[in-house]
Amino acid sequence: MFNPAISKLTAPPVSVVQDWRASYHGRLGELIDMSQAVPGYAAHPEMTAALECAAADPESARYGRVEGDIELRDAYAAHLGAFYNASPVAEEILITSGCNQAFVAAVLAVAGHGDEILMTRPCYFNHESALGMLGVGIGYVDCHAANGMLPEIADIEAAIGANTRSVAIVSPNNPCGSIYPPELIDEIFSLCKARGIWLILDETYRDFLPEADARPHGLLARDGWQDTLVQLYSFSKSYCMPGHRLGAVTAGSAFVDELAKIIDNIQICAPRTPQIAVTPMLASLAGWREENRQRIAARSTLFSEVMAELDGWELLSTGAYFGYVRHPFSGTASIEVAKRMAREAGVLTIPGTFFGDGQEDFLRFAFANAGRGVIAGLPERLTVLDS
Amino acid sequence: MFNPAISKLTAPPVSVVQDWRASYHGRLGELIDMSQAVPGYAAHPEMTAALECAAADPESARYGRVEGDIELRDAYAAHLGAFYNASPVAEEILITSGCNQAFVAAVLAVAGHGDEILMTRPCYFNHESALGMLGVGIGYVDCHAANGMLPEIADIEAAIGANTRSVAIVSPNNPCGSIYPPELIDEIFSLCKARGIWLILDETYRDFLPEADARPHGLLARDGWQDTLVQLYSFSKSYCMPGHRLGAVTAGSAFVDELAKIIDNIQICAPRTPQIAVTPMLASLAGWREENRQRIAARSTLFSEVMAELDGWELLSTGAYFGYVRHPFSGTASIEVAKRMAREAGVLTIPGTFFGDGQEDFLRFAFANAGRGVIAGLPERLTVLDS
Ligand SMILES: Cc1ncc(COP(=O)(O)O)c(C=O)c1O
Ligand SMILES: Cc1ncc(COP(=O)(O)O)c(C=O)c1O
Repeated sequence: MFNPAISKLTAPPVSVVQDWRASYHGRLGELIDMSQAVPGYAAHPEMTAALECAAADPESARYGRVEGDIELRDAYAAHLGAFYNASPVAEEILITSGCNQAFVAAVLAVAGHGDEILMTRPCYFNHESALGMLGVGIGYVDCHAANGMLPEIADIEAAIGANTRSVAIVSPNNPCGSIYPPELIDEIFSLCKARGIWLILDETYRDFLPEADARPHGLLARDGWQDTLVQLYSFSKSYCMPGHRLGAVTAGSAFVDELAKIIDNIQICAPRTPQIAVTPMLASLAGWREENRQRIAARSTLFSEVMAELDGWELLSTGAYFGYVRHPFSGTASIEVAKRMAREAGVLTIPGTFFGDGQEDFLRFAFANAGRGVIAGLPERLTVLDS
Repeated sequence: MFNPAISKLTAPPVSVVQDWRASYHGRLGELIDMSQAVPGYAAHPEMTAALECAAADPESARYGRVEGDIELRDAYAAHLGAFYNASPVAEEILITSGCNQAFVAAVLAVAGHGDEILMTRPCYFNHESALGMLGVGIGYVDCHAANGMLPEIADIEAAIGANTRSVAIVSPNNPCGSIYPPELIDEIFSLCKARGIWLILDETYRDFLPEADARPHGLLARDGWQDTLVQLYSFSKSYCMPGHRLGAVTAGSAFVDELAKIIDNIQICAPRTPQIAVTPMLASLAGWREENRQRIAARSTLFSEVMAELDGWELLSTGAYFGYVRHPFSGTASIEVAKRMAREAGVLTIPGTFFGDGQEDFLRFAFANAGRGVIAGLPERLTVLDS
């Protein structure tokens, strides 16, 4: 009846967790949603106005180029060049309908049946399920608390086999929040280059580094990066517009040509309204992005403080957007703990179970979703579970 | 380096053809674009206003449910029920980001590596390339002019093998314009049911049947249709909004659950703006859809008349949206003929080459794109090629 590769996948994790909302009795105040990663503030009014204007533009009703609108590809290449002190060009940019789609397309471009992609574990659930869906093999490199939930280069090296087509990493990491140091990213890149495989680097949370003017890595300034690097980005979090569905891939132009064939089948083109709207915003909302970066960095600090005070709870890693936390109920599966938290404490988080095998003791908190007052109130909520 | 399943695909056909625009010398008047299927009139002002309003709604900036907004699923189920005199429910609807995505998701739900899908040939290029991309095998059932470019049920039956998971058909057909009679659709359904495989039925052009109030088939009123039928739809053509990217799948709720896992990986959710905007339009634009149906039916009649007058050109099939035409330059590959037509006559069409093997003598004209004056002027343009 069904493709077994799909049947064996679990239901969409965020949907599963969102459905726990109804179980909360409501007596402790509003439900705190730290599950799906969504900025807990609204889009900039200029962005909303631009979306409104673009939606009424007859141009956005038309099919666009498969690779994306040239104006956006140009603007994004310039933006990326300034950010990374490098000079990518429009031909090296492909616009997608969100970063999940960017990942699926990147994987399809390099790996088919019998091939394998290496991932770090815990892993972003949709990366794991996308590979399962496509029948592409998965190799895992486990991350440990002792190392700040970062992979060891030696472990990656050891895990690369004959069928490995790519190493896929996420920095800042989902679910761990951990930020890969530029040197580590550089080392992984060099390893991939030496082994003739692709480095897929998901930078969905790039704009939320805790340090001002930090450059996540220097890869785009390296000669010949086009033969190794595939960089993914999402406009969802940085511009507070996940519902509009917009992402981007940066890769060599030959890679972009392969991606275009895939996107044509999956999507034809990304929706035009957000493409048109976001183009001038890359430059004009720089100040606002910086404010949000600071705002979320402050939430990160506060979240760490709050967790440090909570008996039995241990913050394994954080940095940007997420905290990966050991819950105090060792022996109880994280999904049961998360359900209980939803029901009894009105706090939604994603159980470690959804981030891969061996994650029973952990929960992911998307603290970026919540205001300072809410984060400060977490201990009161979580201690309810002790009884 | 690259996945060979992708490398061997051609570049996106519509992009290839659009790039021929620049070759036209312009001396015969404006370029006539009968290539990509896009309605040659604008969206309804109410639709544009609704899109504008929805884009400014903070709700559309948020992630939605993977399956689509419940309001749209409800409205579409009701609309479909009225159209087909049946009673599909919201749980049997999944909203996608366009009908190409609907096809990819439907295929993934039923077929993996080693499985096969049967298609009619000539085939819609993105269906063929999507299967190639996914590493799913393709079986072909050839359509012939003698049969109005419709498949023979005996040919379909003979082509179903042990690995066949589905028969995929398109009615009204792209590229042929041919309309499958309800009895044929019914027979194909019964055959699929008897063999325990899925019928994937792409109804992108459903709203453009030449007869008023025609019901394309009675499948949704059959008991247990959910175990056999997967019906695909696009809002692109009927609402003149391809750039907004919206489509739908109708299938049993268990099938929808499988699709949701796939859409979560590929898309998370369809863009919210068009979902919110289109919801009330299904009912309120019924009259406008009917006007467009009539308008395009008139173009179809005119196109047939024009082709009948043209020496050497033969209209093999038509009905809705497209005409499939034998060009008079037998021995010259259709791609060369189409290039020459673009360059010398300023007429863009899609060469048969892009619709599968054995289509060298044919061209697809999307007459729905062009006004009556333009269609009437075709002979003047095309006779230029005789010299
Ligand atoms: C690591 C990572 N990649 C990709 C995505 C998908 O983002 P988008 O909304 O652009 O599809 C997310 C969203 O949570 C994410 O965390
Ligand atoms: C048969 C068929 N299916 C699907 C599509 C894709 O439509 P959408 O714009 O909804 O992705 C088209 C578009 O031309 C088509 O002709």
